[in-house]
Amino acid sequence: MGVQKRLLLVSNSTLHGGGYLEHCQEQIKKFFGQQVKKVLFIPYALHDRDAYAHKARTKFESLGYKLDSIHEVADPVEAVKKSEAIFIGGGNTFRLLKTLYDNGLISEIRKRILQDGIPYMGSSAGTNVATVGINTTNDMPIVCPPSLKALGLVPFNINPHYLDPDVNSTHMGETREQRIIQYHEEPDTPPVLALREGSMLLVEDEKSSLLGLTGARLFLRGKTPIEYEPGTDLSFLLRMSLGS
Amino acid sequence: MGVQKRLLLVSNSTLHGGGYLEHCQEQIKKFFGQQVKKVLFIPYALHDRDAYAHKARTKFESLGYKLDSIHEVADPVEAVKKSEAIFIGGGNTFRLLKTLYDNGLISEIRKRILQDGIPYMGSSAGTNVATVGINTTNDMPIVCPPSLKALGLVPFNINPHYLDPDVNSTHMGETREQRIIQYHEEPDTPPVLALREGSMLLVEDEKSSLLGLTGARLFLRGKTPIEYEPGTDLSFLLRMSLGS
Repeated sequence: MGVQKRLLLVSNSTLHGGGYLEHCQEQIKKFFGQQVKKVLFIPYALHDRDAYAHKARTKFESLGYKLDSIHEVADPVEAVKKSEAIFIGGGNTFRLLKTLYDNGLISEIRKRILQDGIPYMGSSAGTNVATVGINTTNDMPIVCPPSLKALGLVPFNINPHYLDPDVNSTHMGETREQRIIQYHEEPDTPPVLALREGSMLLVEDEKSSLLGLTGARLFLRGKTPIEYEPGTDLSFLLRMSLGS
Repeated sequence: MGVQKRLLLVSNSTLHGGGYLEHCQEQIKKFFGQQVKKVLFIPYALHDRDAYAHKARTKFESLGYKLDSIHEVADPVEAVKKSEAIFIGGGNTFRLLKTLYDNGLISEIRKRILQDGIPYMGSSAGTNVATVGINTTNDMPIVCPPSLKALGLVPFNINPHYLDPDVNSTHMGETREQRIIQYHEEPDTPPVLALREGSMLLVEDEKSSLLGLTGARLFLRGKTPIEYEPGTDLSFLLRMSLGS
């Protein structure tokens, strides 16, 4: 039996009216299961890493998992090497990706997920960095990573916190849909899966499905966007290549 | 008499319910005045440069100015050297800045504005690239410029299309204000002037004032944001330095 790739890519950590990771806690427990005892948390997307680790630890302990935060260890690469599961939280995607590069973690995380088969969970910015590149983040470029290329655990990009156009809005800035379509004006750009708040993507080896309650919208270069309902099998996305 | 720096930095090109550049057309006429006969337009922020140039030319001709689009000339650097006024339009800020770098225009535009004193008008992305850096753009990083550093015509950054928090929103993505404050968590970050749609900043040498109807919000690192009404003298902003 070969190694299985396992990812849980969540649009957002907190849903309106709920607590931190509350809306996806059943999926988290099912995803990490009983074999995982301890999760390695990567809090680089937020400035206050101590507070962020405390918040994540409190939640994960309530679900029955121990949590180590990578900012508390002397050697982050070694921590990734020894990890049995990884969770990267949200915040600013540029800051997160730059710190992953600065600490030399990109190739090591890839190896753990794709070669060793440990489970990876991301939320928001942590979901963005799991994809081909962070080109469809909603965040401001507050710092400059050496590249926009990310972990490449899936062959497409994601837009988390996807927002449908507000027909009553008088604001003239581009809608989220217009921004993603602008991305696809560029050559050789991969598909973009837009995950509404409350939705998440589960990847298990060659299979992928849309979880949560709010659905997703798929943008393919030069094509009309397609709506997918919660529960849809999206395995075909894993077989897509750049520009398809 | 020394060279005078002259900038008109507009938040947005189109205000809800109005036509292209309609809400700022009186300011544009006053800014370019009767001495300028022809404006050099830079359409790099949008994919369809022909359509964009046509739109801008139609508007500028209606105001009494000829317009050359830089994408129609063989030598863009030469076009900047010969220009008597520059207008950079909105679209995607990353695409715009990358193309300015790719075509070797950054230093030449700076020279024309700061040494030769020709007037510069920007709207949206064209306003972003006039500042220290594009760190507070609202756009997605659809391409990767070699640097986030921009023209540096003023010693601060701007957030165009500034949106006040919507107290009724159930969306959990960061508000614009939260995003700008995240930028200021980074060290040595300049002030950010957030221009609401309908507002613009006029810079004439050592003087600067806020025009339009909607006002602006100033973010200084580590300080409470400050509101400014239309008409306010903001000359002090031109004397600010990094991190102040």
